[in-house]
Amino acid sequence: MFDLTSYLKEKQDEINRVLNEILSQASHSERIMDAMRYSVMASGKRLRPVLCIAAAEAVGGMNQTILHPACALEMIHTYSLIHDDLPAMDNDDFRRGIPTCHKAFDEATAILAGDALLTLSFEILASNHTEHSSRHITDSRRLDVIRFIAGAAGFKGMISGQMMDMESQGKGLDSETLKILHSSKTGALIEASVYSGAVLGGGNIDQIRDLASYGRSIGLAFQVADDILDIEGDPEVMGKATQKDAELDKSTYPSVIGLSESKRFADKLIHDALKNIESFGNHSDPLAAIARYIIERDR
Amino acid sequence: MFDLTSYLKEKQDEINRVLNEILSQASHSERIMDAMRYSVMASGKRLRPVLCIAAAEAVGGMNQTILHPACALEMIHTYSLIHDDLPAMDNDDFRRGIPTCHKAFDEATAILAGDALLTLSFEILASNHTEHSSRHITDSRRLDVIRFIAGAAGFKGMISGQMMDMESQGKGLDSETLKILHSSKTGALIEASVYSGAVLGGGNIDQIRDLASYGRSIGLAFQVADDILDIEGDPEVMGKATQKDAELDKSTYPSVIGLSESKRFADKLIHDALKNIESFGNHSDPLAAIARYIIERDR
Repeated sequence: MFDLTSYLKEKQDEINRVLNEILSQASHSERIMDAMRYSVMASGKRLRPVLCIAAAEAVGGMNQTILHPACALEMIHTYSLIHDDLPAMDNDDFRRGIPTCHKAFDEATAILAGDALLTLSFEILASNHTEHSSRHITDSRRLDVIRFIAGAAGFKGMISGQMMDMESQGKGLDSETLKILHSSKTGALIEASVYSGAVLGGGNIDQIRDLASYGRSIGLAFQVADDILDIEGDPEVMGKATQKDAELDKSTYPSVIGLSESKRFADKLIHDALKNIESFGNHSDPLAAIARYIIERDR
Repeated sequence: MFDLTSYLKEKQDEINRVLNEILSQASHSERIMDAMRYSVMASGKRLRPVLCIAAAEAVGGMNQTILHPACALEMIHTYSLIHDDLPAMDNDDFRRGIPTCHKAFDEATAILAGDALLTLSFEILASNHTEHSSRHITDSRRLDVIRFIAGAAGFKGMISGQMMDMESQGKGLDSETLKILHSSKTGALIEASVYSGAVLGGGNIDQIRDLASYGRSIGLAFQVADDILDIEGDPEVMGKATQKDAELDKSTYPSVIGLSESKRFADKLIHDALKNIESFGNHSDPLAAIARYIIERDR
């Protein structure tokens, strides 16, 4: 029986070690490094890097070279949280149980820390961090991953999702537009995390396609589950305020299709995701467990 | 006799055409595309992409494949201007003669437009935009350029420069610290532009080293000239306010080593830069003319 809790703990420890190492580099501004470290090292689920690693495992290609790209995904996620939390955007004071970056430092530092994390991610994705040539990732796969991640994080993905999210406040969205918003805002980077692991782990074209489909489904499910948690979650457990969506008059799955229909939709997405990874057998046990966890989590 | 004005005009037209093409893509948020286009298509000198092209020419490797990476450099530059102009940072209302991005749109849109331009730059740098395989840039050179540009734009380069700039307001800096600040804030991306052209144009290791040295010198000279223009420049010609440095009590070359000594220093840097490209003969005429222009410009 696969034990997700100890799997996550093991991977999170490895990821935190590498993140810590990456963020121990010197800069002419200590303050910018402090702010980057502050936000990245705040306790997080590390979902994106874990997915990257689990996808590489599914194609039988997990090794130390995957850890740095996996951490780059967490840094892109953290940058997006820092910027989304800014007063001009969602204006959040707490995140992961501690003051948000602009509260702990200041707005200018938070903007630059986000910028620096995004930039550093691409530097890491373009770099080879191991000397074992047998573990070398081909340049072509590395470039493929950079293109895919940049696409997912950019104006066609995560950023357009955040813009749509802000533009839609106070306006009722239909479920089709909401799906695009959620798939862009959260789904795209989650899909990219799975895709990256599959490509960097050396997966073949069918494996990469199946894993990307899995990623797309759990990515959307994750945001639907977030919408549900914003209503049913415990702010103490989540480390951030709940009921924010209603307060800001945001369209969410529960507000558009109802709470129980949203739960059914999330279940269906996870069902689809599990179908997509059936052919990997035992190798995809972690991915299957993560898919289930996404709709069962309490934070 | 080399005619810089018509050279710049020709290159700027090509660059603007490609920028326009890149920024005509569809997004789920029209507003984010509008904001990106607004800031990028405002009249700019296009110094960084021109330098990239001129460096590729110097090594005899200029072709259409260079235009997209060259434009990526302009987009990184524009993103940095949009974020630096924000109220939390330099709080500027005008740039390139028109309202800054957060004035024309709003702060949230400006933050996201900057993020999107930065992200899109890396997508472009990782992509091959031509079908002529004979003009193909090797994957290894492409990754090298991504690493160099990300390093120059990140927490060791441009971003640490901007942080140092803000942290130093009201504090007198010594000339050594000021040199680090200026080299990081402006110099690093200018050096990266020249470096990228040399690498993508197929330059050999000696050529790349010489051109990078040239880039380092003109990059610092550019910022010294900017400091001087902030005192002596005409705001009408420059399209932005002058005397900002004194107002914000910033350390500048004129404030630290005096105005005439600053001019001598800029001259010396350009002299050094010209030395570095002597061996390229006629092929480096554009680079030589640009170096001189950098300290002779009025905006």
